[in-house]
Amino acid sequence: MFLFNNFYSIILIKLLRFNFFFWWIFNKNKMKKISSPSFFIGKGDDTKLISFGSGQPDLPPPKRAFKIIKEFSGFKYGLIQGDSDLRKALSKEYSKSTLDNFIITNGASEAIDLSLRAIFQKGGKVMLPRPYYYSYPYNVEFAHLKPVYYNLENGKINWDNFEKIVKQKNIVAVMINSPSNPTGTIQDLDVLAKIEKITQKLGVYIISDEVYKDLIYDRENYLVKGRNVITINSFSKTYSMCGIRIGYLYIRDKKLIDRIVEIKTHTSMNTSILGQIMAREAMRESQKYIDKQVETWKARRDLIYNGLVDLGLEVWRPEGAFYVFPKIGKNAKSSADAVSKLYYKYNIITYDGNWFGAPGYIRFSYALTQKKIKEGLRRFKRFLSS
Amino acid sequence: MFLFNNFYSIILIKLLRFNFFFWWIFNKNKMKKISSPSFFIGKGDDTKLISFGSGQPDLPPPKRAFKIIKEFSGFKYGLIQGDSDLRKALSKEYSKSTLDNFIITNGASEAIDLSLRAIFQKGGKVMLPRPYYYSYPYNVEFAHLKPVYYNLENGKINWDNFEKIVKQKNIVAVMINSPSNPTGTIQDLDVLAKIEKITQKLGVYIISDEVYKDLIYDRENYLVKGRNVITINSFSKTYSMCGIRIGYLYIRDKKLIDRIVEIKTHTSMNTSILGQIMAREAMRESQKYIDKQVETWKARRDLIYNGLVDLGLEVWRPEGAFYVFPKIGKNAKSSADAVSKLYYKYNIITYDGNWFGAPGYIRFSYALTQKKIKEGLRRFKRFLSS
Repeated sequence: MFLFNNFYSIILIKLLRFNFFFWWIFNKNKMKKISSPSFFIGKGDDTKLISFGSGQPDLPPPKRAFKIIKEFSGFKYGLIQGDSDLRKALSKEYSKSTLDNFIITNGASEAIDLSLRAIFQKGGKVMLPRPYYYSYPYNVEFAHLKPVYYNLENGKINWDNFEKIVKQKNIVAVMINSPSNPTGTIQDLDVLAKIEKITQKLGVYIISDEVYKDLIYDRENYLVKGRNVITINSFSKTYSMCGIRIGYLYIRDKKLIDRIVEIKTHTSMNTSILGQIMAREAMRESQKYIDKQVETWKARRDLIYNGLVDLGLEVWRPEGAFYVFPKIGKNAKSSADAVSKLYYKYNIITYDGNWFGAPGYIRFSYALTQKKIKEGLRRFKRFLSS
Repeated sequence: MFLFNNFYSIILIKLLRFNFFFWWIFNKNKMKKISSPSFFIGKGDDTKLISFGSGQPDLPPPKRAFKIIKEFSGFKYGLIQGDSDLRKALSKEYSKSTLDNFIITNGASEAIDLSLRAIFQKGGKVMLPRPYYYSYPYNVEFAHLKPVYYNLENGKINWDNFEKIVKQKNIVAVMINSPSNPTGTIQDLDVLAKIEKITQKLGVYIISDEVYKDLIYDRENYLVKGRNVITINSFSKTYSMCGIRIGYLYIRDKKLIDRIVEIKTHTSMNTSILGQIMAREAMRESQKYIDKQVETWKARRDLIYNGLVDLGLEVWRPEGAFYVFPKIGKNAKSSADAVSKLYYKYNIITYDGNWFGAPGYIRFSYALTQKKIKEGLRRFKRFLSS
């Protein structure tokens, strides 16, 4: 009998072990670390999921942008610098500019890449905000430059910290991102004025990434100014044309324009002539179109910001773009852990602050309907109380 | 009387000087040196001109490529690596490949740029053919690498010369361009096989630019093979979609694919989703479409090649692409001088061999109607006999 019992208990133990092994494998995969935003690519269409992930507006572009391509029949190379009509239209939005001050690019990404390649200097350093848009450090590295970071405190530039760093040797450029991804904050006008002044004095470029310039809730955008300024912009956010990839550069310095066009001539040639026609047509929309978009974004901002505050989170109020960046702090072991749990257990996509140089924070993009935001907040509440 | 005479002669001399001054100014501008292909941008539409300049097919893309975009309504970010359907279709053209072996890029230019940036090594050198496609040396420079040249003799690789150079220190890659721009030649199969072998042995990448793979008159294209091979291709030439900017990379090495996708993620993101749909649709054309294109190109090749031979020029017979590259030799002070005279005096656009690393030659692109080729040859004859 003992033997018999023993035999069965061995089987039982083996079975338990076997099951434990599968449970472990299953949960290991289920909760594995998510190491970059690209993990979530293609997952946005899952209907069970609430995605606060991608910076992709959910509202479609103006209908006329699609109508115009129905008659399209072009196929030849376009101007490397970009379609003249499109550049002329842009020049009307920037005072005292002509079409020669613009270069049309494959999204803001190429605009940043080309700028950094054009201003390359051996041993050169580029000042980046921290938290930063997650591509910036890569952009700097791929242009064979080195990043140095200045801090955003509660989303704002600390001038003393900034001034100390900008005076260091070998600083060739300063990246400004107002409104900011991921913080959703805008920079104060007096600080921007001081940055304009000191960089001009020191001969340092400003690369001002203003892709969210039209999505500001509390004041008009302030265009950072100067002969040393490289303005980055895009049709992706204002006109929801992310996948069409039309960005642009606005620069006063003719020599720098020529250098960038030279690099683009050999590294990608003209930006898609088709996308440029869509962008030109989108610009024919009245200010009303943009105002209406901003209204939608603002309502969403209020909803998610108030929701997170009500849940007791430490978070600053977004003034532009469509991101909110709460501290996850005591609610999770780490922001990486939180993002992983939120995805695997609560079916919510959020982005880890580590990807933006800010561990302990998570980014919510609110490019989704109010209904989904509400459901997302409900799930998030459950996560917090677990 | 003497005084009177003197007075008039002074006036006369002054008038003559004045006129000479204007004549000089006028002719100085009229015959100024043309320093790069970009000088000719936008001049192709002048009806007085015969342009043997740009490498832009004059035949339009398949009609279905335009039809498909009439129903297009997408606007969201696409996969950085490229549309899955398009990559699946491409994988059917390359034996033993899957969609994972392809990356869709902003034309072949970005494909080359990304490849060089991905294989960057400090102090690394890249072997380029000479004559070369005029962007190659810039591509290498912009990727912080150094070019080293191997010679094409009558358009063909000299193996002994090639072998000596490839064994040098710090060679990270070899660029192959068969069919070649500007020479119109293809490389012999035994030489390509030897290059495959020696580069694999030495751990050197081959970047094989095969954008003219479908435009060959004498044999099928030979796909250069190996785990160390980066194949560059494009929809610009086969499907005349230059301005739409769709190129691609075919690579067997998974790690290299990942590295390139990583760089593209931050420097341009997805290639235009609209252009990719056009490319996918163009691929639905049967082989007949391509055969018919090749027939047209071949007839033009014969016309211009025989024409130049009849004019007594030293020139090799193009086997692919749509360029012919005669020696201008005794017919002009220099190829720069010839290109300038041909443009200002005979209204013909040609490209200076200097731009391809081959002074003394000029490039004729034959992407224009037989009627225009004939008229161009008539003008060229007048230039030669002047």
